[in-house]
Amino acid sequence: MESAFPTAARLGLHVLLYSSLLLNALFLVHHFLSAPPAPSPLLSEANNGGALSWALRAARDAESVAAAGCSGHGRVFLDGIVGEDGRPGCECNTCFEGPDCSARTPDCTVDADSGDPMFLEPHWMRHAEASAVVVSGWHRMSYRATDGLFQSVELERCIRRLHRAVGNAVADDKQIVFATGSMQLINALVYALSPDSNSGSTANVVATTPYYPAYRTQIVLFDSREYKWAGNTSMWAKASGNSTTKEDVIEFVTSPNNPDALLHQPVVVGSSAILDHAYFWPHFTHIPAPSDADVMLFTTSKLSGHASSRFGWALIRDEKVAKRVNDYIMQNTMGASRDTQLRMLAIFKTILANLHGKEDIFAFGHDVMTAKWRKLSAVVSHSRRISLQNIPPQYCTYFDKIREPSPAYAWVKCEREEDSDCSDVLLKAKIITRSGVWNDASSRYTRISLIKSQDDFDLLLERITEFVDAELTAAGSNSM
Amino acid sequence: MESAFPTAARLGLHVLLYSSLLLNALFLVHHFLSAPPAPSPLLSEANNGGALSWALRAARDAESVAAAGCSGHGRVFLDGIVGEDGRPGCECNTCFEGPDCSARTPDCTVDADSGDPMFLEPHWMRHAEASAVVVSGWHRMSYRATDGLFQSVELERCIRRLHRAVGNAVADDKQIVFATGSMQLINALVYALSPDSNSGSTANVVATTPYYPAYRTQIVLFDSREYKWAGNTSMWAKASGNSTTKEDVIEFVTSPNNPDALLHQPVVVGSSAILDHAYFWPHFTHIPAPSDADVMLFTTSKLSGHASSRFGWALIRDEKVAKRVNDYIMQNTMGASRDTQLRMLAIFKTILANLHGKEDIFAFGHDVMTAKWRKLSAVVSHSRRISLQNIPPQYCTYFDKIREPSPAYAWVKCEREEDSDCSDVLLKAKIITRSGVWNDASSRYTRISLIKSQDDFDLLLERITEFVDAELTAAGSNSM
Repeated sequence: MESAFPTAARLGLHVLLYSSLLLNALFLVHHFLSAPPAPSPLLSEANNGGALSWALRAARDAESVAAAGCSGHGRVFLDGIVGEDGRPGCECNTCFEGPDCSARTPDCTVDADSGDPMFLEPHWMRHAEASAVVVSGWHRMSYRATDGLFQSVELERCIRRLHRAVGNAVADDKQIVFATGSMQLINALVYALSPDSNSGSTANVVATTPYYPAYRTQIVLFDSREYKWAGNTSMWAKASGNSTTKEDVIEFVTSPNNPDALLHQPVVVGSSAILDHAYFWPHFTHIPAPSDADVMLFTTSKLSGHASSRFGWALIRDEKVAKRVNDYIMQNTMGASRDTQLRMLAIFKTILANLHGKEDIFAFGHDVMTAKWRKLSAVVSHSRRISLQNIPPQYCTYFDKIREPSPAYAWVKCEREEDSDCSDVLLKAKIITRSGVWNDASSRYTRISLIKSQDDFDLLLERITEFVDAELTAAGSNSM
Repeated sequence: MESAFPTAARLGLHVLLYSSLLLNALFLVHHFLSAPPAPSPLLSEANNGGALSWALRAARDAESVAAAGCSGHGRVFLDGIVGEDGRPGCECNTCFEGPDCSARTPDCTVDADSGDPMFLEPHWMRHAEASAVVVSGWHRMSYRATDGLFQSVELERCIRRLHRAVGNAVADDKQIVFATGSMQLINALVYALSPDSNSGSTANVVATTPYYPAYRTQIVLFDSREYKWAGNTSMWAKASGNSTTKEDVIEFVTSPNNPDALLHQPVVVGSSAILDHAYFWPHFTHIPAPSDADVMLFTTSKLSGHASSRFGWALIRDEKVAKRVNDYIMQNTMGASRDTQLRMLAIFKTILANLHGKEDIFAFGHDVMTAKWRKLSAVVSHSRRISLQNIPPQYCTYFDKIREPSPAYAWVKCEREEDSDCSDVLLKAKIITRSGVWNDASSRYTRISLIKSQDDFDLLLERITEFVDAELTAAGSNSM
């Protein structure tokens, strides 16, 4: 029996035993050392060494949804429409379709109409960890946040820090009023700058062509007794002669301008000017110096790309004007969503932490937008049928160098006499644009949005190239 | 050499080997089966067996903040003011103070003014897991959500399901328009129901005393040419005689009413009525039957207690009216924050999943509010100086039983002739209330909010008891 255990077998048994014991040891080490990475400095002891409890389910759901590829031409959202399998499905970019967005829609018309700032989405996908936020069910249910205020003190601090760091606006001597997008501030500011309802006088609201249409459409829709839309500045100057005092005028100045991307100053001397600086950030324009107007408008939509969050703010020098704006916002919506303010805090902190670094949102945005402008300009330069606005490279204080142009929109002119409806000309070439008539300008102009997704731009470039090629082919055959 | 391996040793070696192998097997089983609890059905394979990546930091931060006790008299929020230690500190309930909110502010005046629905906060703390949501940095940045819409299809489905399940409104044949709180819908609906700006006529907006003051203050502030505030219904009837046609009248009807909690119907026959059903949920009132008015208003503020989220909706029968409301909302704010819509989806799903169960939000809310009303009524019943509105127990279709009253507000009357300013009388007793003059009613009435936190109510009850005791003591000494 004893010899039934030969030396070789004994040796094998020893190897097996020691291997097994070693494996035990390794498992033990693995078991006790493989806890998740250390928590952020803010918080530690509360987590029992890193294990999550109530936030785990929401975190898992979000990560699972984020992991869906949708072929790079779409994405799944937590609140997407739930299919038969109980999961939300892919939402595809325009001109892509199928369950995983992998199919190109044949013969698709590209949509370059909306100012939807999707070009910044890849930046936030890359900064998923820093920009994510967990909203608990009991987070800030009260109307009033810290110190009884309706707007977040920490977010206001971040906004002031950002203006200082970017150098695009003097915020230190201004009041900040939050709003549900800068859209809400258009009418709120006109209300605040208009004469009192008891005065019997009416303010004239104007803007210089080509202007952002919401100034006109809001004033017309709200149709208040204290102010009225008085048309564009040249119409107003003609109509008013010397009869209207300049104090009655509220002038909207978009700088850089939507649609043509040029920097502007007020033209009506002595008016109350509202400087709409939605696009006054280094990814869209050079920053020559900080703006220091009495009333300025900003929005996250064009800063960080979060159009859907509906968050904007005004910088206002005069305390009484700021109070009137605030009264309006309170009556209208009781402030901006505090859920959104929490999310924006994470977004602003991430932007601030990366300024001038490798992951600077403005450097990223500028790179994307310059590349688009360069490619579009190169194609259009071959055309004599359409032309783009001219934007020279200019020195930018933020980047401390001469920068290439990177406008949010191309302001296209149709040069041929018969092409009097430029947006229609491009629509026939399967490109949806926004006609200049919206901007109170000639229909000979139309706006092409460049701030949508890369898919949208790639397809746009395809269509524009086809359009210019057709022109060149026709010119070639004519000259034969 | 062979005998060097005795039987006992061999046996021991075998035992050790098999034990070790067994232990390995156990470790392996443990390793592969001890993954965290199965993820929600929505999502699974994406999570690599449960390990989190980018969402972990945000989840940890949220749980750490949630773990702060603040002595049960306050809480820490993620976006609270950051102290010197780099962490946000406790935000204390009114009349509590100190770094952990453990100290009672001596001789504190209780604030029963605001309709801040904090009584539902404990419900959401208990449902932390189901109601939490992770918002990724790249979540829905676009203006447009699923199907190009500005409002979430899934959230709309939940809202319709909730109305059906609660039986408080017929939603199936109505359009739903989302807004930044029901506040925004007040003026939006008046705009939509007013005559066209070209018609030259002006709508008269009215409400019956005592009414919610925002109807008046909004109409006066926005001061549109198409409509005007025409005072309360009895003033309007007196002033108009037979000269104004009923079609010119837009009547706000709050039911149950704020401040007095009674169910109401329109009083101006033939008017366009707006039924404000902010409080028409089973925690505040019995539900006799589903409301089926042409235009109805709801808000999460008073349904789930999320006042800060600024989310409300209108149910509208007529498609043209709904379109006009939507046009207004788009011009005003381009819809309601999509961040908030995502959060509300989690909140609504949690409510729906628990209806009629042990964790029904309405059962919880009704229990809390009935207890408050019973205690307050008991104290006030001893007083001849102040009285409360009378609300009988009534049959509720939702609970399918006779339910005790649970109003959001006490509508207090001061009975003594000299107490003509009732809010001032109570202020002297260190209770801040909202004078009836805000509701266009007599200053002999004042509103006490019962929907704030339990701390606020406990202190209120203390102050009211002191007030009634003082009256009884004085009466006792007078009768001696």
